[in-house]
Amino acid sequence: MSRLIYPVGVRILQSAAVGGHEEKNGPLGHLLELHDEDDRFGADTWEKAEGKMAALALSMLLAKAKLKSSDIDLLFAGDLQNQCVATAYGLLPFGIPYAGLYGACSTATEGLMLAAMALADRQIDRVGVVTCSHNCAAERQFRLPLEYGGQRTPTAQWTATAAGAFLIGREEGHASCGVGISAVMAGRMVDGGVKDGANMGAAMAPAAAESILTFLAERKKEPSDYDAIITGDLGEEGSRQLLRLLEENGLSLGERHKDCGCLLYDREKQDVHAGASGCGCSAAVLSCLFLPALSCGKMKRVLFLSTGALMSPGSLQQGNSILGIAPVVELEHAGML
Amino acid sequence: MSRLIYPVGVRILQSAAVGGHEEKNGPLGHLLELHDEDDRFGADTWEKAEGKMAALALSMLLAKAKLKSSDIDLLFAGDLQNQCVATAYGLLPFGIPYAGLYGACSTATEGLMLAAMALADRQIDRVGVVTCSHNCAAERQFRLPLEYGGQRTPTAQWTATAAGAFLIGREEGHASCGVGISAVMAGRMVDGGVKDGANMGAAMAPAAAESILTFLAERKKEPSDYDAIITGDLGEEGSRQLLRLLEENGLSLGERHKDCGCLLYDREKQDVHAGASGCGCSAAVLSCLFLPALSCGKMKRVLFLSTGALMSPGSLQQGNSILGIAPVVELEHAGML
Repeated sequence: MSRLIYPVGVRILQSAAVGGHEEKNGPLGHLLELHDEDDRFGADTWEKAEGKMAALALSMLLAKAKLKSSDIDLLFAGDLQNQCVATAYGLLPFGIPYAGLYGACSTATEGLMLAAMALADRQIDRVGVVTCSHNCAAERQFRLPLEYGGQRTPTAQWTATAAGAFLIGREEGHASCGVGISAVMAGRMVDGGVKDGANMGAAMAPAAAESILTFLAERKKEPSDYDAIITGDLGEEGSRQLLRLLEENGLSLGERHKDCGCLLYDREKQDVHAGASGCGCSAAVLSCLFLPALSCGKMKRVLFLSTGALMSPGSLQQGNSILGIAPVVELEHAGML
Repeated sequence: MSRLIYPVGVRILQSAAVGGHEEKNGPLGHLLELHDEDDRFGADTWEKAEGKMAALALSMLLAKAKLKSSDIDLLFAGDLQNQCVATAYGLLPFGIPYAGLYGACSTATEGLMLAAMALADRQIDRVGVVTCSHNCAAERQFRLPLEYGGQRTPTAQWTATAAGAFLIGREEGHASCGVGISAVMAGRMVDGGVKDGANMGAAMAPAAAESILTFLAERKKEPSDYDAIITGDLGEEGSRQLLRLLEENGLSLGERHKDCGCLLYDREKQDVHAGASGCGCSAAVLSCLFLPALSCGKMKRVLFLSTGALMSPGSLQQGNSILGIAPVVELEHAGML
């Protein structure tokens, strides 16, 4: 049985991206719909700020789509905070029927995949997907409180303060609108043996390689059939590992490979080490860079796979290695967003 | 638009439940397929033990269904540990395409709902759902280390050391087999204002009430159309609140209401205060008590709604109240498991 599922007539109809100070200062900053200069989004803790940012992304999505929250039938959301409380508290006020996800930084793609599947039998019309991450909340939960001023290693990535929101529906009434989701594939957990919590890219690269190899084989496609094969947040180190793993399997992506973690910041000017990470990274970059390119036809077809590192500080302390996972969505030009 | 979705021909084809020492000693203990007397399941930490228990539940499910792990197309799973690492590490060895969920103690129902939706367009055949909780892992993560010997309040519940696994498929080839999933409804997050981490039942009751009232109204059914309306883990206190909230809305459930949290232990003989809780509670009770009753026709139709408390120790410390959520599945007698 194939791992691929082919949604029929399912499209990303609209999206929105919100970021923080560092993201605004990066090369994609001018493409964010909203940002907050002090990363607080009006909240008194970093954790609450993350939820407020997720809410802003969803509000902006609804505004762009000219919809009310009651027009959304189901909302998939998740984040990196313990028990996913950023999205839960942040999205509570919308009152939309809710299904929480945990896919670590792969949540954006996991949500798009499940949204496409949920729309398949035509009983619901519109599904929302929201995900977010906040650098300061992540630092103190996964690593060290900011006040400690710890040194970061060269392979460490910078958890993005960013949120992305997506509206997924069917093409009826949107004949030349949006970006088609033409195929989806759930990820498989892969244990590459990496135990270094400051090298998530290397931990996730084997899962990304497995997903790309499986997807292309089952879809009977070559990399040249795609304008880009886009990973979520492998960063510089993980991207290098991915290309090496693929080349060992006879697959060369070359310039066709893009990584959202390498695109969000200017690593020459911004002190982010190996690049960006976090649930919000791939969501924001998809929303503000790749969806517009697919929508206007500058890109015709891409593979998009957010990459997740399944681990906790406790699991690392207990000697476990970091598991990677990389669900895939194939996106195609359908019309203008 | 209705919040209800009607899966066609989707059934729970098999299930399995595993528990610990306390669960084995409870009134449903003889119905568990497997248990471990010292709650360790061969692991050297409670956190790893929880993952091993989830793996045992899935192994038992596959054995009962006479399937290999490669026969399962997609696995929904989740637990209460930070970043859901119990199910991630526990289920890694099976290599099944994976979608992580976070619905707190509502995960079993969330998973059944999404499985039914995923099967709708007939591109995949079999979906697994696994969820678990472990008392000792939960105590030290959410409350206090066991060694501290803290006093518990009367409204506190006992996180069950239990795991449940379910196989969901379509009826083809299983004409008189299993339990039908005839309708599903995603939950809405409800903030009842409860900030007491030792009274989860009260925090979840408003969400359960909202789900039951909405489901019955949209389905145009009365409580008398069901043999039972089953909540996940409201416990004694939460169940009382639920019945009161429903009566305020003109709905009387009476004896028709069952709560898995009140059924798993004998509160006269076991020191569990207000009853059981945890992702594994409703999953295990559904598997070992209600699915067999539905399968043999002793029960014809039930509503099943696991109840989740969306919160973290950090969100409580920051002054947030506890959000409740209660997705619903309507289950019907179809044939013998």
